[in-house]
Amino acid sequence: MHYFDHSATTPLHPRVKQLMDEVGRIHFGNPSSIHSSGQKAKALIEKARGQMAKSIGCSSNEIIFTGGGTEANNLVLWNLIHEDKKHVVTSSIEHPAILATLDHLQDLGVAYSEVGVDKYGIVDPSEIEGSITEDTGLITIMMANNEVGTIQPIKEISEIAKKHNIPFHSDAVQALGKFPIDAKDLGVDMMSFSAHKFYGPKGVGVLYFKKGTSLKPHIIGGSQERSLRAGTQNTVGIVGMGLAAEIAAENLERSQLYLNDLKGSFMDQLRSVCNDVVFNQHSTECIPGLVSVTFPGVRSDLLMIHLDRRNVAVSSGSACSSGDIKPSKVLTSMGIADDLNICTLRISFGSGNTQYDTSLLVDAISESLKLIRPAA
Amino acid sequence: MHYFDHSATTPLHPRVKQLMDEVGRIHFGNPSSIHSSGQKAKALIEKARGQMAKSIGCSSNEIIFTGGGTEANNLVLWNLIHEDKKHVVTSSIEHPAILATLDHLQDLGVAYSEVGVDKYGIVDPSEIEGSITEDTGLITIMMANNEVGTIQPIKEISEIAKKHNIPFHSDAVQALGKFPIDAKDLGVDMMSFSAHKFYGPKGVGVLYFKKGTSLKPHIIGGSQERSLRAGTQNTVGIVGMGLAAEIAAENLERSQLYLNDLKGSFMDQLRSVCNDVVFNQHSTECIPGLVSVTFPGVRSDLLMIHLDRRNVAVSSGSACSSGDIKPSKVLTSMGIADDLNICTLRISFGSGNTQYDTSLLVDAISESLKLIRPAA
Repeated sequence: MHYFDHSATTPLHPRVKQLMDEVGRIHFGNPSSIHSSGQKAKALIEKARGQMAKSIGCSSNEIIFTGGGTEANNLVLWNLIHEDKKHVVTSSIEHPAILATLDHLQDLGVAYSEVGVDKYGIVDPSEIEGSITEDTGLITIMMANNEVGTIQPIKEISEIAKKHNIPFHSDAVQALGKFPIDAKDLGVDMMSFSAHKFYGPKGVGVLYFKKGTSLKPHIIGGSQERSLRAGTQNTVGIVGMGLAAEIAAENLERSQLYLNDLKGSFMDQLRSVCNDVVFNQHSTECIPGLVSVTFPGVRSDLLMIHLDRRNVAVSSGSACSSGDIKPSKVLTSMGIADDLNICTLRISFGSGNTQYDTSLLVDAISESLKLIRPAA
Repeated sequence: MHYFDHSATTPLHPRVKQLMDEVGRIHFGNPSSIHSSGQKAKALIEKARGQMAKSIGCSSNEIIFTGGGTEANNLVLWNLIHEDKKHVVTSSIEHPAILATLDHLQDLGVAYSEVGVDKYGIVDPSEIEGSITEDTGLITIMMANNEVGTIQPIKEISEIAKKHNIPFHSDAVQALGKFPIDAKDLGVDMMSFSAHKFYGPKGVGVLYFKKGTSLKPHIIGGSQERSLRAGTQNTVGIVGMGLAAEIAAENLERSQLYLNDLKGSFMDQLRSVCNDVVFNQHSTECIPGLVSVTFPGVRSDLLMIHLDRRNVAVSSGSACSSGDIKPSKVLTSMGIADDLNICTLRISFGSGNTQYDTSLLVDAISESLKLIRPAA
């Protein structure tokens, strides 16, 4: 398979895979056990916590391992039901792990306001400030969007949050390994991460939460993760996440250049064979290697099927399943009309892709388009 | 390490490890992606769902994969906050994933009653019936206890639940692979499982819930697991759990005999070298291979340290950490006085143990006791 869907998930980094294989073979003790077998597992988890902390510029005791990024987001949002101030300011282009959860929490007294975005998917910090009410207990704005890659002005939002003394959470699932993340510098109070987005394993995530931030657990029943996330820790997964975070930080600059080279080259080639394509992502405020591209008149589900037959994996900008295509809320928020919205693909390059792959992808798209619209 | 702590966690079965290694190397696609790479991962998950379902006698669409047994328990209990009937009947010897969660949920309007147990840790079904109120919305009783291995009269409790039309959940984390579990025959509505208790991976669990049972998600933000548990599925972990469940069901009878042979042999040998030991577990209604043993006058934390120095891993009956030993609530509920309570070990044999190991363990205990109480 020629894989161009790294924003959906990434393969394991070979070093991460090797380490996980080894830990899974040898260190099976329960990290909560007080005998040596358990303590060895615990030490491995604490090493991973340190790696994760270092990669985002925080302390080890500000890292909670979870079962994934979605759980980390839920942990933050469900906390609102225990708070006095139950209003949340968020944006219209957040992941469903934020928006669907907030929807659900309305039954439990939580209210929220969505701010809109500009044509590139950028939130206006002044709109966020304008949405704050007396009852606002949380601001949550994603660091980078999953469909169009847009990077948000997190530092500015952070300053607004501080000014109004409101905790600020950012869903950073798409961000780690894409650009530098420094918790202190950004000034955020909480951030969510997911290992499988940066060449780590599926089923493990992190909530960063700044010392002094108040938090009640969402999964209860044990003293793991300082009683903030109960359940026997997934040693192998956590160890994999720690190393993946370390590698992502080490390779950051090189990876940015590499992915943006692939992206630029792909966009140039595509434009030369298909002159009516529209690129939706911002030219600079976008994660490396991500392209959101609209093929006017060509439904994305149909194009994806053609590409899949050619063994090419990309993603649709719109949430589609079993033939029922719906316009993407993110693209709608950016002002993209439904007829173009449903004709949008997300292509996300990764470390395993090469320049040769970009040509292969352009050829596959070009050949598919010829079959779909023979007149073109 | 000589490992006798299989109720805390088990090593991976070699076939499970091999399969997980292979899947982790090759099938990294996001199971929610519609391209072939994602669909292949999805197919692997569905196969595992079938294996899990078959091992407990239910349909595939009654299986929800979670991040562990604790999460499965939380999923069930948190559901109460959305229900009209918010009273829960439970027992005093449940795992903290039940009791601590119920404690926490009191702030959200959930109330609960604990029934006691007899000297073996067995719940009296008539006491459960007596605790039911107009407002009871759930009965939750564990299938087998984690400290003393006691197997509960689940079928009888199930009949009471049916009679009163109350959903019945059982925390079956310690049960799978220990005795036959047939969802239909037991008549339970929900059961929780954890892969790492039966030679599967850590970080993955299952909630069985009978078709027609109402359930709201606890982790929200995606349509995975039929919208009942959001977040990118842990393909490798789920695949490992499916195979581990299949192997556990296949090996069940042989494993029961084998573990009880080890247990009997260990108990005989121990009695012969240490005549004041007290065994706390029930002689028949106990999971195979588990021994709860009290060494009067010898604090379990001290004995564990001595055993650990001899490279022997066992567990304490009481929850202890960093020198601060507290009587176990389970043992207290069984009527065991504090001075004996804090002198209790849990020994849990597993498939990797041999008869030789039982002698080694008895020797290690005997030598340790000589050092701790030289007069004996």
